[in-house]
Amino acid sequence: MTNWLEVDTYAKEWIKEAGERIKKSFSKKLLIETKSNKNDLVTEIDKATEEFFIQNINKQYPSHRILGEEGISSSIEDLKGIVWIIDPIDGTMNFVHMQRDFAISIGIYEDGVGKIGLIYDVVADELYHVVQGKGAYMNDMPLAPLKETAVEEAIIGLNSTWVTENKRIDPKILAPLARDARGTRSFGSACLELAYIASGRMDAYITLRLSPWDYAAGKIMVEELGGKVTSLRNENLDLLTQNSFFAGKPGVHKEIMEKYLHNGEW
Amino acid sequence: MTNWLEVDTYAKEWIKEAGERIKKSFSKKLLIETKSNKNDLVTEIDKATEEFFIQNINKQYPSHRILGEEGISSSIEDLKGIVWIIDPIDGTMNFVHMQRDFAISIGIYEDGVGKIGLIYDVVADELYHVVQGKGAYMNDMPLAPLKETAVEEAIIGLNSTWVTENKRIDPKILAPLARDARGTRSFGSACLELAYIASGRMDAYITLRLSPWDYAAGKIMVEELGGKVTSLRNENLDLLTQNSFFAGKPGVHKEIMEKYLHNGEW
Repeated sequence: MTNWLEVDTYAKEWIKEAGERIKKSFSKKLLIETKSNKNDLVTEIDKATEEFFIQNINKQYPSHRILGEEGISSSIEDLKGIVWIIDPIDGTMNFVHMQRDFAISIGIYEDGVGKIGLIYDVVADELYHVVQGKGAYMNDMPLAPLKETAVEEAIIGLNSTWVTENKRIDPKILAPLARDARGTRSFGSACLELAYIASGRMDAYITLRLSPWDYAAGKIMVEELGGKVTSLRNENLDLLTQNSFFAGKPGVHKEIMEKYLHNGEW
Repeated sequence: MTNWLEVDTYAKEWIKEAGERIKKSFSKKLLIETKSNKNDLVTEIDKATEEFFIQNINKQYPSHRILGEEGISSSIEDLKGIVWIIDPIDGTMNFVHMQRDFAISIGIYEDGVGKIGLIYDVVADELYHVVQGKGAYMNDMPLAPLKETAVEEAIIGLNSTWVTENKRIDPKILAPLARDARGTRSFGSACLELAYIASGRMDAYITLRLSPWDYAAGKIMVEELGGKVTSLRNENLDLLTQNSFFAGKPGVHKEIMEKYLHNGEW
């Protein structure tokens, strides 16, 4: 029988400590390096952070498995048992260029069901946190259930890429949405954009290419608060592969899926 | 003879105080209001903030004139003498939806020449500050001169609006730029996107519709550090009207103006 309270306590402790380590690394080095060295350094910090989680998890929970962006842990072909899905730095480009707007993301799943999600905006020191069935929090402040929103009132996370010529979707499909919405934004970190939906700051987030570690935590959070998360074809997401990705507050997900994405038949 | 050091000292003091007042207003009220009331409240705070600056400036510098977004001050038809160009809350939609990523912007011009610029990111407590000829600062930390950047390495502030059908520009003109750049972002506050260029976090910012108060401070800042600011037609900006707007680091402004905007002949 898994002691989820204990798992949660460790996960929170580790993510905070990992954040501290990242802040120290970049305040010391990143700002003074040249751009190409910056890219090497970010890889180094990325790997060191994943390694930090792997060591802690292996020691404390030897039966748990790990799926991480840096792929240091062994490969995973199913979601049996308890799996930690980790992105040590989501928003790498922001990390390099802006030294902000990046986050650590951890989703903990049991037999494919999301149990605990943590998204830590390191620089803003904002920890978004969800325990399935027990609510979601930002720095221990409870987040309210998501309200129904209409497209015309919605702020939608949508990068320009998906409304210009690209390999994955005809730009004509999402362009009308960009026009009809109250506004679009693009922050360059998928897990933070999901945390922004959870905290009511944005209403939806759409992208055509996302990996499980980018959304593993955010999916649990948005769903816990009544939002909906699917692919752009209106399918459930497969946590073992790349997917198109669409998360939204209850009303706005439905409206976009019906009016703009034709229930996935595009 | 204007004592610019004194003007600068007052401007910094007032902008910090205005930020404190905004924070207090919204922490007390904004979070608990309904959405439509939020819009009323933001207008109220916007106006109160502009009024705060007007009263202080009128009292201390009765000969100075004021151009503000809320238009409470008398209308201005030329830039003679000293003019304060003020946006009490730039990024109103972010203010309402996100309670962050908005800023107060103040540009102080003498006979049309930018002398002092202040951009205050209230929630992050980051004050970007420039005195013409004396460098630019973020929270008193000097900002480095801007480096030449190529489009393929650049992060460009560009909203999806301008690469989908719109009234102001054929989406085909900027779409190739969105593809070729390293990434695009959209933060929803023009003055903050300019502060991000000044602090090296972004490389360029493009929009087809901007008012003088949105960029009055940021223009001085970007230019002081060696960046370039023009319209998308490669013209100097008219501080008395709405303009298209294009700010960038030295290399990237030239490359975009030549390759994508055909030196303004589009």
